[in-house]
Amino acid sequence: MTEKLYIGIDIGGQSSKCGVVNENGEIIEQLVITSLQPTLEKYLNDLTTAITELKHKSASYGEIQGIGIGAPNANYYTGSIEFAPNITWCRNADGEPGVVNLANLLSERTKLPVNITNDANAAAMGEMAYGVAKGLKNFIMITLGTGVGSGIVIDGKLVYGHDGFAGELGHVCVEANGRQCNCGLKGCLETYASAMGVARSAKLALQNPESKESILHQFNIETISAKDVYDAAKQGDTTALNIFTETGAILGKAFADFVKFSAPEAIVLFGGMTKSKEFFHNAMVDSMNEHLMKVWKGKIKILYSSLKESDAAILGASALAIR
Amino acid sequence: MTEKLYIGIDIGGQSSKCGVVNENGEIIEQLVITSLQPTLEKYLNDLTTAITELKHKSASYGEIQGIGIGAPNANYYTGSIEFAPNITWCRNADGEPGVVNLANLLSERTKLPVNITNDANAAAMGEMAYGVAKGLKNFIMITLGTGVGSGIVIDGKLVYGHDGFAGELGHVCVEANGRQCNCGLKGCLETYASAMGVARSAKLALQNPESKESILHQFNIETISAKDVYDAAKQGDTTALNIFTETGAILGKAFADFVKFSAPEAIVLFGGMTKSKEFFHNAMVDSMNEHLMKVWKGKIKILYSSLKESDAAILGASALAIR
Repeated sequence: MTEKLYIGIDIGGQSSKCGVVNENGEIIEQLVITSLQPTLEKYLNDLTTAITELKHKSASYGEIQGIGIGAPNANYYTGSIEFAPNITWCRNADGEPGVVNLANLLSERTKLPVNITNDANAAAMGEMAYGVAKGLKNFIMITLGTGVGSGIVIDGKLVYGHDGFAGELGHVCVEANGRQCNCGLKGCLETYASAMGVARSAKLALQNPESKESILHQFNIETISAKDVYDAAKQGDTTALNIFTETGAILGKAFADFVKFSAPEAIVLFGGMTKSKEFFHNAMVDSMNEHLMKVWKGKIKILYSSLKESDAAILGASALAIR
Repeated sequence: MTEKLYIGIDIGGQSSKCGVVNENGEIIEQLVITSLQPTLEKYLNDLTTAITELKHKSASYGEIQGIGIGAPNANYYTGSIEFAPNITWCRNADGEPGVVNLANLLSERTKLPVNITNDANAAAMGEMAYGVAKGLKNFIMITLGTGVGSGIVIDGKLVYGHDGFAGELGHVCVEANGRQCNCGLKGCLETYASAMGVARSAKLALQNPESKESILHQFNIETISAKDVYDAAKQGDTTALNIFTETGAILGKAFADFVKFSAPEAIVLFGGMTKSKEFFHNAMVDSMNEHLMKVWKGKIKILYSSLKESDAAILGASALAIR
């Protein structure tokens, strides 16, 4: 029996994971190449070689139908990666981040249809095709990693917006004139609710005299991480627990405003930060409901990704190739 | 020549406007009935009679294809008006707001398909079919009236969400623990940026010693209205002008977060408050751009409804019947 197969490629700053996925959402072959090539030509050569190899290895299972790519600053409409600061081969001659139409270039080389979108949108597609959002027509995917990303699904379709850049919910303002964000704005959700945001909260807490009993003081204030805060919370440290409670409250309040926009059935969470959910989940749900009108109070589901974190990025990207 | 005709019905707390609209967006017949009937049966009788009359009067132009209704708390999916506090005939036996499936009831009586949605969604449909949003696939309609309503269009379709209640952008939080809103929450956009919100700002300003020179003091602090603030601004009153500038800044900041959600091509404004646009437009646009990331700065259009205010509600409702 021959199956329909899809290639999913997850492009990160360091490495690119490529995998062949079958219709049941199983990764049947995968390999990793470096993303750290100095030129687009070299990266494209590596990527094309990897795809040829994957095609060859999976030939006995079935035929590759298309390629889906999840990448930072990727635009679904144009097929381009646009001004991604951390992608070495996506620079202009002057060294500044530029625009690379990876979908077209790869499609020419492989003779396969190629779709591309950003990581959070790919995660939403993966969750809808193979994960906890299977069957949901209206949900919002929030990725809680180093930053906060989002993918919005309405009526079973990802929202790309007029220009392809819809769903930047990590950058809604949760605190007027709040923390400085890398995007140039202040008070973005991501500066509080990402792993980086939790580390910033810890730095601030350590400067607060009230935290003087906290075991967080054993860490270097410059390098303290969300993982350190998690470990301290595990040991019952009040300061660490408060950081997660406050993070949950901020997330929940933001979610309430997202609900007023698209009235989703569920908000789906994914990413490294969700490992700490035992410490922020309740505060998040309470805060969301506190900030919702009666019609929605207690009705919006919070779901956590059911995909293995190591597989999720490839699965998500491959799901882009399905349609 | 016989045309396709559509009936649009705009149900307000006091009166219901009914009109027959042709494919060019012209209202060829219209009449008004009272909304203040004590029972559903009486209201339905009036409405059915009105529709029969409209059908009769427009028979020489063409055939009625369907009915669209814009009404408070109307749910597109179920066809019901749900818990609308100001609709007298939409109450349970105990006098509390109840649920009336107006779409089904009216369809049974008229043998025509009936679609229903809330006023702001109907306004968005009208603007897309006949107004300034013609040809736009991605925009957000914001109605600035007594309250603030919204209708969100993505990929040419209104967003209803999982439950039919998407697009409650008047109730996103713009100020933590801010002004008390009728919806039960605090700090909702509508408590600042509606006509009612401007009146509240005026009341507060009059209690501020800095406003002692303001001509707003000629008005009764209890009954001062947005119209009074407009008139004072027209005369160059600093306090009144500041109220509009601050209102614009609040609107613009909220719009920036809406853009991060659905990346619309434009935000379309409609309603009584837009008569004061000369006093808040610039502050609104500046604030929106200040709170947008580089990718959107200066790129989001702000448009004002091009429909006659007296016609817009009927046109909007009728546009619902087209699909």
